[in-house]
Amino acid sequence: MERLSIWAPDGLPEISPGDDLGELVADLLTGQDEPDRPRDGDVVVVTSKIVSKAEGRVIAAADREQAITDETVRVVAQRQRPGLPPLRIVENKLGLVMAAAGVDASNTPEGTVLLLPVDPDVSARTIRAALAQRLGLRRIGVVVTDTAGRPWRDALVDIAIGCAGIAPTDDLRGSVDAHGRPLNVTVTAVVDEIAAATELVRGKSTGRAVAVVRGMGHHVTADDGPGARVLVRSSADDLFREGSAEAYARGLADGRADAGPAS
Amino acid sequence: MERLSIWAPDGLPEISPGDDLGELVADLLTGQDEPDRPRDGDVVVVTSKIVSKAEGRVIAAADREQAITDETVRVVAQRQRPGLPPLRIVENKLGLVMAAAGVDASNTPEGTVLLLPVDPDVSARTIRAALAQRLGLRRIGVVVTDTAGRPWRDALVDIAIGCAGIAPTDDLRGSVDAHGRPLNVTVTAVVDEIAAATELVRGKSTGRAVAVVRGMGHHVTADDGPGARVLVRSSADDLFREGSAEAYARGLADGRADAGPAS
Repeated sequence: MERLSIWAPDGLPEISPGDDLGELVADLLTGQDEPDRPRDGDVVVVTSKIVSKAEGRVIAAADREQAITDETVRVVAQRQRPGLPPLRIVENKLGLVMAAAGVDASNTPEGTVLLLPVDPDVSARTIRAALAQRLGLRRIGVVVTDTAGRPWRDALVDIAIGCAGIAPTDDLRGSVDAHGRPLNVTVTAVVDEIAAATELVRGKSTGRAVAVVRGMGHHVTADDGPGARVLVRSSADDLFREGSAEAYARGLADGRADAGPAS
Repeated sequence: MERLSIWAPDGLPEISPGDDLGELVADLLTGQDEPDRPRDGDVVVVTSKIVSKAEGRVIAAADREQAITDETVRVVAQRQRPGLPPLRIVENKLGLVMAAAGVDASNTPEGTVLLLPVDPDVSARTIRAALAQRLGLRRIGVVVTDTAGRPWRDALVDIAIGCAGIAPTDDLRGSVDAHGRPLNVTVTAVVDEIAAATELVRGKSTGRAVAVVRGMGHHVTADDGPGARVLVRSSADDLFREGSAEAYARGLADGRADAGPAS
């Protein structure tokens, strides 16, 4: 029997630039009843929103669209809808393909937007070190989450954009099924599943930006590990590097040029 | 404080065609210690693999590739890799875009493959009715999961391909953040997040194909509800209806035709 417990304590104060987030999260967690205080093998999950706020990633931006442009490394797909801001799905500086580059204009003061952390894996390592020291733990995982859309499926799920002290994947390649055949399901995105699981207790409009997961100790590691960056698919393996309309338009232009005046 | 408990009991027997899965799951769950027996508001999560087995979706297939072709409604993207079977990402009869159409050749006897349930929402409703009756519960949710890849991110996560008695999404549109601004994160795919959460306790190579989630009672409904089918994005909203290479090739051909002999 495997068992997981996930809880999201209330009471984290509003986070401001320069706050020591690791200390504030440690304060929150040590203030819980004893059974809910983190133990070795637990995973502490925080939203990128509070990490960004602590790291001063709130910027004045009269124009959210300009902020998105600034965070964009590469446009993947876009669509203009009547009466709405353009939908832009882009690769951002973290290699993440997200709508609006991950720029967030909710839960920030008017006239400002929130950018993602500069390096959420580094943020996770910093929080992990603070928690390990304050809580006296040797093995504690940290995951930094954000909310993302998916092609082909409506609605959003949380994913892991940073992690430390936890193996980001569970690699089953080489194991066999009950019939001795290789498992064709090979690598599971464990930290993405942890991020999704904690969204269920965290909600969006509340102050619960921290969650604890107990029962994943077999994935918690003694070192920081590779981080969630390893989950970003390489461009060589990416069959959806451009939106269908964008790729078609590029093909059409190339085809016309091929067969154009020179032909 | 929100709190979620998730557990995956061992001991479900090997499932065979014609088995009454609802009864077998009820047997498994009523055999647990009292605190782990389902209560009103719990969600019971089962893998599509055992649903398919019970529904007799194991078919003889000397050629897995032919089975994938038969399940394909529309090819989205494909890639031929040296020494490997072709990678085919297709829309299947359920509207799901998946590698290999969701056809599974692991954990089945040699020479057979496992197809997805004909209608996993109907499967979920049937299991829910059996559980509600056997367990004497009025409100119990059921989710049927499968494992899927995602563009742009490596590794796999579990998603919900069927559900009953649980609201598939959490619609936050209309709610406001702490600053009174509309939340730009609007609709959360709750049942996908539940599927992902339970994968963490279920694993892949084990016999744990059933999990219980306690703490989502606010999403459990008195009726079956719309099912997980509502999470399939409409083609009008799908910016990745074709792989980049496929869309480019179509554009190139059209461009050459445009500018061809007639020009």
